[in-house]
Amino acid sequence: MNFKISKKVFYSSLQTVSRAISSNSPIPSLTGVKIDVLEDSIILTGSDSDISIQKTLTAEEEDIRLVVSETGSIVIEAKYILEIVRKIDADDIDVRIVDGSLTKISGNNAKFEINGVRASDYPTLDFTKPSQSFELDADELVTIINQTTFATSDKETRPVLTGVNFKASEGKLVCTATDSYRLAKKVIDLNTDSTFNITIPAKSLNELAKIIEKDSKVEICVSDKKAQFWIDQVLIQTRLIDGFYPETQRLIPTVFENELIVDSRDLLNAIDRASFIKNDGVSIIRLAATPEKLIISTRSQEVGSSMEEIIPDSYEGKGINISFSGRYVYEAIRVLNASTIRVSFSGEMKPFIIKNVADDSILQLVLPVRTYN
Amino acid sequence: MNFKISKKVFYSSLQTVSRAISSNSPIPSLTGVKIDVLEDSIILTGSDSDISIQKTLTAEEEDIRLVVSETGSIVIEAKYILEIVRKIDADDIDVRIVDGSLTKISGNNAKFEINGVRASDYPTLDFTKPSQSFELDADELVTIINQTTFATSDKETRPVLTGVNFKASEGKLVCTATDSYRLAKKVIDLNTDSTFNITIPAKSLNELAKIIEKDSKVEICVSDKKAQFWIDQVLIQTRLIDGFYPETQRLIPTVFENELIVDSRDLLNAIDRASFIKNDGVSIIRLAATPEKLIISTRSQEVGSSMEEIIPDSYEGKGINISFSGRYVYEAIRVLNASTIRVSFSGEMKPFIIKNVADDSILQLVLPVRTYN
Repeated sequence: MNFKISKKVFYSSLQTVSRAISSNSPIPSLTGVKIDVLEDSIILTGSDSDISIQKTLTAEEEDIRLVVSETGSIVIEAKYILEIVRKIDADDIDVRIVDGSLTKISGNNAKFEINGVRASDYPTLDFTKPSQSFELDADELVTIINQTTFATSDKETRPVLTGVNFKASEGKLVCTATDSYRLAKKVIDLNTDSTFNITIPAKSLNELAKIIEKDSKVEICVSDKKAQFWIDQVLIQTRLIDGFYPETQRLIPTVFENELIVDSRDLLNAIDRASFIKNDGVSIIRLAATPEKLIISTRSQEVGSSMEEIIPDSYEGKGINISFSGRYVYEAIRVLNASTIRVSFSGEMKPFIIKNVADDSILQLVLPVRTYN
Repeated sequence: MNFKISKKVFYSSLQTVSRAISSNSPIPSLTGVKIDVLEDSIILTGSDSDISIQKTLTAEEEDIRLVVSETGSIVIEAKYILEIVRKIDADDIDVRIVDGSLTKISGNNAKFEINGVRASDYPTLDFTKPSQSFELDADELVTIINQTTFATSDKETRPVLTGVNFKASEGKLVCTATDSYRLAKKVIDLNTDSTFNITIPAKSLNELAKIIEKDSKVEICVSDKKAQFWIDQVLIQTRLIDGFYPETQRLIPTVFENELIVDSRDLLNAIDRASFIKNDGVSIIRLAATPEKLIISTRSQEVGSSMEEIIPDSYEGKGINISFSGRYVYEAIRVLNASTIRVSFSGEMKPFIIKNVADDSILQLVLPVRTYN
């Protein structure tokens, strides 16, 4: 195996596929980047077996400056190859197997010989493309991810809640995340009549959001075993979470007693200010609303208290007093990316809904908490 | 106690004095900022009893906008007051004791009531000014700190080595740091005939370097118990380390067999590139020099090896092969801030000296290590 390649392209590609690699993988070879050198392209693969990222670099593309002298494959510890390639001060990098799995990486006057792992010791990953597919704008996919994944559960007790449910039918895609104390639901139109119901790990989606480049198109292919995201020369593949995703539609109230319209930033800042007053690490915030004013307050026996007044744009209904997790409401409002929000209540102990007045596609739901002071 | 003050000035002053505060101090009141409100000034104090920082804000200075309505004192948990003042969105902040030690901090529509600690529960700190004093440019003091503290020991087995020794006599100030494997020595001229021999904790000096503003003058006052640094309205006081600082002059070789002159950046980069190859977490680097070339190499059974050639500016003496800690030499060269350095050897197992060819005031010494391959 022997090839020469642009340092800049090689380094950024190694960074991309390394996102899937976990340095403490129980399978030793998965801590490495697999390099497959073909006649006129190289394929870099990184995987933690849940998520896999593959990038193909071809000799055709001019700025890659790929020259293959000998085909072959090798696996090299991700942290070593990243550090070597980053530090070598040269325009092009030469990579070759010198003996067995000993691999020489060189550029200018610096050369490194690193003990690699034979490609035959790397697990076989199945990258076949599922037949069911649709396309999304990269920006739209990133928005879906940002508006939902934060609401997934981080507890493994109900694994299915650690993922975002993607349900497609009748030309609509409904994306739902919940940890059973809050829920995020995004609905978008699909340009195909795909029908599927899959749950993708939040961790995979968050990695995906970091890799996706703006202004590109993403082809998404799904089966009941895996989802693939194709973005130019990069393929991101993730396993799905097994199990039946709960029916959440009946949890979302449809009749409301009170409705608050308020500047998004005003409410965010007030919650942020109040949130440092915590009881056992959790900040419980009380919202008291009347048509005239909104009062955001907190109280902790140990630290003290805070109180802040906001003038709402409008408030309809009787006065309400409701307490909730400051962090949950803060996160829900932040991802709406709204200038003005509508908060709809159906009772002091019932879940309430937060929406961007200018965007009906995304709904955030939060359960209030009971307080005794 | 009641005063009003510019938020911006109050916040940055709280940040300054908080640098001395440790949130897990064994003395609970020391986790707070002490606020003393006088007729026409306020004094903020932070301390971990090793280092104390005091800042005085006076009503005279226009941009402080200090208005005192009632004198008094209080201690408020540093992390709470910092977060409150940072988050309040107002030009001016009002601070007042409302009941006992309950303190109200408010601005615009937001108000916080925080449980403080009575000033009488704060330890008495002695800020009397020692009589022996001299002045340094802020930049010069920061340079001394940067060029020496990194070479102090982080082990408490010989406490005196965790500090930098400042020894003044005959119009010279000699600043020495060593962990017994390497040594940094800085010599500067003093404009006074002070005579003292004190050892200042490296931790205090590093905090000092962060607080000092460029282009100012620092007045330094020392006794055998403490050192004070006065910078405008800020006073930083530190305890000294007891004990006899070792005589280091005899460790520094004065006769050399080989002398290498090399571009500082070339050598730094080569060491940086090689340093990721570690044995048990330590990167041992071999330098092989002849008049024609310099070879920097490393080897590890597990990872692999590296080799790099550098063309030196000049080399005098027989060829030499010497091994050393990559980190020690890297740190020593970096703080010299040199374009060209001189490395002087007096044998493969003897300490060697690194200097900036353009600055004789600072000397770095490193002990080689024995290798068996």
